[in-house]
Amino acid sequence: MAYFDAASSAPLHPVARQALLASLDDGWADPARLYREGRKARLLLDAAREAAAEAVGCRADEVVFTASGTQAVHTGVAGALAGRRRVGSHLIVSSVEHSSVLHSADLHASGGGTVTQVAVDRAGGVDPAAYAAALRRDTALAVLQSANHEVGTVQPVAEVAEVCRAAGVPLLVDAAQSLGWGPVGGGWSLLAASAHKWGGPPGVGLLVVRKGVRFAAQGPAGERESGRAPGFENIPAIVAAVASLRAVRAEAAQEAVRLRELTARIRTRVAATVPDAEVVGDPERRLPGIVTFSCLYVDGETLLHALDEAGFAVSSGSSCTSSTLTPSHVLKAMGVLSEGNVRVSLPPGAAEADVERFLEVLPGAVAGVREKLGAPAPAPAAAAGGAGELVVDSLGKRCPIPVIELARVFGDVPVGGTVRVLSDDEAARLDIPAWCEMRGQEYVGEEPAERGTAYVVRRVS
Amino acid sequence: MAYFDAASSAPLHPVARQALLASLDDGWADPARLYREGRKARLLLDAAREAAAEAVGCRADEVVFTASGTQAVHTGVAGALAGRRRVGSHLIVSSVEHSSVLHSADLHASGGGTVTQVAVDRAGGVDPAAYAAALRRDTALAVLQSANHEVGTVQPVAEVAEVCRAAGVPLLVDAAQSLGWGPVGGGWSLLAASAHKWGGPPGVGLLVVRKGVRFAAQGPAGERESGRAPGFENIPAIVAAVASLRAVRAEAAQEAVRLRELTARIRTRVAATVPDAEVVGDPERRLPGIVTFSCLYVDGETLLHALDEAGFAVSSGSSCTSSTLTPSHVLKAMGVLSEGNVRVSLPPGAAEADVERFLEVLPGAVAGVREKLGAPAPAPAAAAGGAGELVVDSLGKRCPIPVIELARVFGDVPVGGTVRVLSDDEAARLDIPAWCEMRGQEYVGEEPAERGTAYVVRRVS
Repeated sequence: MAYFDAASSAPLHPVARQALLASLDDGWADPARLYREGRKARLLLDAAREAAAEAVGCRADEVVFTASGTQAVHTGVAGALAGRRRVGSHLIVSSVEHSSVLHSADLHASGGGTVTQVAVDRAGGVDPAAYAAALRRDTALAVLQSANHEVGTVQPVAEVAEVCRAAGVPLLVDAAQSLGWGPVGGGWSLLAASAHKWGGPPGVGLLVVRKGVRFAAQGPAGERESGRAPGFENIPAIVAAVASLRAVRAEAAQEAVRLRELTARIRTRVAATVPDAEVVGDPERRLPGIVTFSCLYVDGETLLHALDEAGFAVSSGSSCTSSTLTPSHVLKAMGVLSEGNVRVSLPPGAAEADVERFLEVLPGAVAGVREKLGAPAPAPAAAAGGAGELVVDSLGKRCPIPVIELARVFGDVPVGGTVRVLSDDEAARLDIPAWCEMRGQEYVGEEPAERGTAYVVRRVS
Repeated sequence: MAYFDAASSAPLHPVARQALLASLDDGWADPARLYREGRKARLLLDAAREAAAEAVGCRADEVVFTASGTQAVHTGVAGALAGRRRVGSHLIVSSVEHSSVLHSADLHASGGGTVTQVAVDRAGGVDPAAYAAALRRDTALAVLQSANHEVGTVQPVAEVAEVCRAAGVPLLVDAAQSLGWGPVGGGWSLLAASAHKWGGPPGVGLLVVRKGVRFAAQGPAGERESGRAPGFENIPAIVAAVASLRAVRAEAAQEAVRLRELTARIRTRVAATVPDAEVVGDPERRLPGIVTFSCLYVDGETLLHALDEAGFAVSSGSSCTSSTLTPSHVLKAMGVLSEGNVRVSLPPGAAEADVERFLEVLPGAVAGVREKLGAPAPAPAAAAGGAGELVVDSLGKRCPIPVIELARVFGDVPVGGTVRVLSDDEAARLDIPAWCEMRGQEYVGEEPAERGTAYVVRRVS
């Protein structure tokens, strides 16, 4: 199995495994205790904190170990908002943050706070000027990821941090996807990360709160981790997490070059060999290991299963692969195609041969799914005379069927004519405009229909 | 090193270690993913949930894995309170609960809720009638530990659950100290536990919410663990935790008999061989492995160091061993002596020879500390004529010095005379009455003094 889903979770680094085993023997006792075993555990914890601080570029007493990256984000956002309650309750996030950030924002809003979601461009990047424009006198906190987890786009953290600093607003950086590659530059105030993304064990997150940042830990009080992360410290996992961070960092510069070349190869070859595929995310400002593309007329879940059969583990932001049956909020915010979506995220050490084999298998896998779904031929049929307006009833049908049915009839309307697609599938709202963009046709807009929504497309060529 | 602090954290069970290693290979991927590695992780998680449910005696879909026992308590208390918000906001806890429960209660009170702390008897046990008396029409939740973590006293959970059930109030049981010994009987509604207490790895807690119990998870939403424990599942640690629970359970009946005999031996021998020691906790209704005693005129921290030097890891509820310099809230609630406090908590497999060696070393260790502190001889000096009231200025002096200074002068007052001890040490409030109890003298009470507090003792014999 070629595992290409490192952005979900990286396999345990061999160094982490060794460190975990060693510290299971030396670090299981309560570090708050006075006896030898407790002191040994305390020493391991202190050393891990020092090493984590060095890797982040902060002071050891600014580092809090949490039970997960999600907990680090939840704790960081809640504590920073509460710490600046007197200033106001306005929170700024980007529209492509991790769900842990967006769920924190939802909770804040449901408690009476206000939230501004900063939009992204079609490549998934934010504009520092948009953060500047969102800042208000009552802004308590701004949040921005260092890089996007679904499309790999690197965000202008240093610039946004500068904009926030100038306004006296702390910036929390979600560095989950990038910390293994290097420290986050710029004048941020808080940082969150997750060890299992860089080859550490699950069960360890990192929250950094810079000295001088107002912070009021929420939830019940606790004696552990400066009162910021209650519960018995998971020292063996913490030691393993930090050992792994140092190990991946030691190879990061070299490995980044190699993976960047491999993902560039995927970008080029997918565009060249898979008809009607859209490669998404910033082609330049991106993480080394992530590349994402969507395939018109393809069911994401079926494609994932076909790739799994062929020995490739990848993930998808298509609605059919989500428990809520909605497309990824990241693809939605970018306004790109979500059907037949595939995210390839290469772990450090991913073999070139596996990537080559993936590129050989992919076009056939996509074609297979399209054939099964009765998708139209890649190029639309030549213009022909016919009805000025056609209605396609795709009610009750799931992604990618509404887009396939649109494409099937599109050759039957004359230039200037329109097709109304009736659909109650959430993905259609994203994918029909994306189809128009890809086909150079005009997306007129959506209208409420008796059932579902009517998406109107005008033929312009 | 003989490790006698299992109630803080048990060393990793060999079975847990094996399971952890195996599932680091098979359980590191995201169980929400569709590919093979994800499905393997999901299978491991499902199997662990089934096994945990069997050990608890509940349904698998009632089990939530959390990142710690503390998180299980915090989540359980907050969710149950919120779920019954319409009924009211009254919370009942015992005065000897774990700090995670008391901190949850403090937070509830600071948010406008009301909290009743049910008192315990001198053995640390609660009376079901006291819970019955505390129940109100607006009681949203009651909490009770299955057994006390500091003195080992087993609580009447089934009886309290019945009282709560009759009133329609859910009972949350903190089973952290007892789940390794067996399931918790009775009609409780929620249960919390912590894996590292039974030889599992750190990083795993257990929250059980019975079907039909109103529960509204607080904090940001999450997709994991039925929305009740956000963050990436720590599957290797969960698998190890459950494997360990099954392993300790398989040996529990036999091991309980053996440890109970060893702790009974400690109870008897400490009383016989250490002058002025008070063995605390219920002599019958108690956990197999825990025995706790306090030694008059002894500094807990110095005694712990002496025992550590001799190769024994134990813990203490004395004020000098706490970061807040206050005596354990459990000893305080019981009204027993806190100075020179030692908790011995034997892990399963503790060697009889180590216990015997401990009992040989202990009297000398206690005598050594007393000698260093200039403690008075065990029996008070014979009555003598003298001043009718003596004042002892112990201001600025820490436990156990105020009690030592009281004992030193006590022979100088006649029967009927009093000693006023001036002290600003929190432990004196507990230990001076406890000294009176042990010596058969009358504790008159406390009065505010110019600095600190005056504790008044009358000589009656």
